[in-house]
Amino acid sequence: MSDVVSLLGQIEDIGRDPRGPGYLRPGFSPEERTLREWFLAEADARGLDTEVDGNGITWAWVTDPGENAVVTGSHLDSVPGGGAFDGPLGVASALAAVDALRADGRLAQARRPLALAVFPEEEGSRFGLACLGSRLLTGAVSAEKALALQDAEGTTLADALSAYGLDPARAGRDEARLGRIGSFLELHVEQGVGLAGTEHAVAIGSSIIGHGRWHFRFTGQGNHAGTTPLTHRADPVVAASRLIGDIPEIAARHAGAVATVGRTLLHPGGTNVIASSMDFWLDIRHPDDDVVAAVLADITRRAHERAAEAGYAGRAVTATVDQESYSATTEFHSEFNARLGGLLPGAPLLPSGAGHDAGILAGHVPSAMLYVRNPTGVSHAPEEACEDEDARAGVTALADALAMELAR
Amino acid sequence: MSDVVSLLGQIEDIGRDPRGPGYLRPGFSPEERTLREWFLAEADARGLDTEVDGNGITWAWVTDPGENAVVTGSHLDSVPGGGAFDGPLGVASALAAVDALRADGRLAQARRPLALAVFPEEEGSRFGLACLGSRLLTGAVSAEKALALQDAEGTTLADALSAYGLDPARAGRDEARLGRIGSFLELHVEQGVGLAGTEHAVAIGSSIIGHGRWHFRFTGQGNHAGTTPLTHRADPVVAASRLIGDIPEIAARHAGAVATVGRTLLHPGGTNVIASSMDFWLDIRHPDDDVVAAVLADITRRAHERAAEAGYAGRAVTATVDQESYSATTEFHSEFNARLGGLLPGAPLLPSGAGHDAGILAGHVPSAMLYVRNPTGVSHAPEEACEDEDARAGVTALADALAMELAR
Repeated sequence: MSDVVSLLGQIEDIGRDPRGPGYLRPGFSPEERTLREWFLAEADARGLDTEVDGNGITWAWVTDPGENAVVTGSHLDSVPGGGAFDGPLGVASALAAVDALRADGRLAQARRPLALAVFPEEEGSRFGLACLGSRLLTGAVSAEKALALQDAEGTTLADALSAYGLDPARAGRDEARLGRIGSFLELHVEQGVGLAGTEHAVAIGSSIIGHGRWHFRFTGQGNHAGTTPLTHRADPVVAASRLIGDIPEIAARHAGAVATVGRTLLHPGGTNVIASSMDFWLDIRHPDDDVVAAVLADITRRAHERAAEAGYAGRAVTATVDQESYSATTEFHSEFNARLGGLLPGAPLLPSGAGHDAGILAGHVPSAMLYVRNPTGVSHAPEEACEDEDARAGVTALADALAMELAR
Repeated sequence: MSDVVSLLGQIEDIGRDPRGPGYLRPGFSPEERTLREWFLAEADARGLDTEVDGNGITWAWVTDPGENAVVTGSHLDSVPGGGAFDGPLGVASALAAVDALRADGRLAQARRPLALAVFPEEEGSRFGLACLGSRLLTGAVSAEKALALQDAEGTTLADALSAYGLDPARAGRDEARLGRIGSFLELHVEQGVGLAGTEHAVAIGSSIIGHGRWHFRFTGQGNHAGTTPLTHRADPVVAASRLIGDIPEIAARHAGAVATVGRTLLHPGGTNVIASSMDFWLDIRHPDDDVVAAVLADITRRAHERAAEAGYAGRAVTATVDQESYSATTEFHSEFNARLGGLLPGAPLLPSGAGHDAGILAGHVPSAMLYVRNPTGVSHAPEEACEDEDARAGVTALADALAMELAR
């Protein structure tokens, strides 16, 4: 029986970001594979039946496989420069909760099957589509569309699955596996300041607020940085940068909305070269889908204005906008949450600005989430934190919740 | 005897940019090596004595090596997404001029030695320092400093030289080779609209205007794009982008100045991640060094203002600025230019906004440049152009100029 803190310690050196602090564990990468092998070995050591399904989701059956199963788990991939807890805390806590339920005899009394699940490419850092594993499982994205997704090197998901030892022909909506899930519970590190400074180590998720990703491309005229007068430039970097600078102001007009640009691509990308194009990816979130749409409309309008002002008589700068993904606001299962509330009296009910596989599954099976206190409130960065005692409190809450569900 | 157009045709498929149109021929890359091997084979076919010196400069002696040599040449590396002529036109024209001088007997009358030279990493696209070969040759950069330069993958110049089959210990100022150069003449495609639409196919270079590169780094707080309220962000991308958007306005206050950002680096670079830092490289040029300094001072002041406004009470955004290189305005040799003017009556005398190896050598030996008409006026981009007839006119002018110098 391993403590959640020591389980996390076993993987703390896997997939460190070679560029600086934090982790770099892209979906279907060698690093994610090493983490998956760690999980499979831990499951083996506990005598669990394991399999990796056609979508790259790793399953470990604690009981015999069966219908109406209680399933818990999270993910092991990270954003570039990510923290240690986003994903792995939920996986390690699931293993630790199994140990606890066995040790105190509650597992022996289970009336339903129990399984652990680890989802691949939850962050979408490699192929651009977050929660890729759960979207494939549920059919929220078609196999055809997903397999054609490309990473920054031009590798398709189909090729990445093959390189991972998986058959791309098996990817896609999986009625059988989805149909076995009676309820899904994901434990996750809290990603804001919702618990920091409170008396609570654990919160219950109320909803995942609507969020989407849009790809902007500004196109102008590539040219020489030294020989092209300012008056003869159609510089897409100037136009796109001005727009990025405008975004906080535009988003702030819509109370509660956030909009972020964290990834850009300049082509061709030389110091002495006026770029011919600049791409960036915009992330917008708000509980009200209409507000997300309004923020996007305002930013799109401004994009065309910024493009128009950056050209000259001889050459225009143009802007295009494509939606890469959108997930409407998702409420977690109200009865499941009411039961969790009974188990954790006084625990805050927190909406999440972050997406999760539980949010994708919530459209198909009763789903819920537990959040564990993050004293810094920082996430997707090396400063993400979780105290040992809070992690242990999370395992206790998860084990109690699983026992409650297994007894129903 | 090969025509300059057919010589260029021999290399038109080497080092094409896999990401799109144009070329990607970084210094000391396999592509540049293939081009160097092409040059060595062409020199061999003409019976020239060749060698690659400790700085990676390729020499081909048309006559016996000796003092007070006339040297001509250019470079074969390109910016990312570069055109076909920037560099290769000067190298191919040098070979074609040798053929012409042999064919008409003028080479036999030479009173001075003649050599061709091909300089590596002229664009500085890989190691950040333009004219790296000529800077090493002349001591404009020390071997110690240059060998420690790193490319985007963290490979040092020392390692790149070794991988190229060169001994890094041989890099650095080379008195013997520099001392043999009596005069240097570089032919280059024109990089602006200085000749387009005129009756002239060839111009004479008057000067290379002052230019430098500065590295800006904005540092803030990396965080989650979904869970961090706008009011709790210290987003370096917002600050740096606003500054980039301000740059054209700031530069335009200084008549004749240009300032460009064509390369950026966001860390960690995830769509759903507020970046912790954003770097960019600024290129500024103006004939008056004081104006370059004033543009830089204005942009630096604005950088700190933009950083200050992007933070919040809990976390500041900060900006740093480091000079990577600076070359003051360089006038080409007045007597050499007067002789060229006699040879090419009415040819325009053009200042260059672009740096060249001839500009580095000009501080040490009498140097001059010939520019060949570019009908699009575009450079450092696939649209860079040179008509066949203009390229042939350039060879004629180069051969005449070499014959004139060889007879002195």
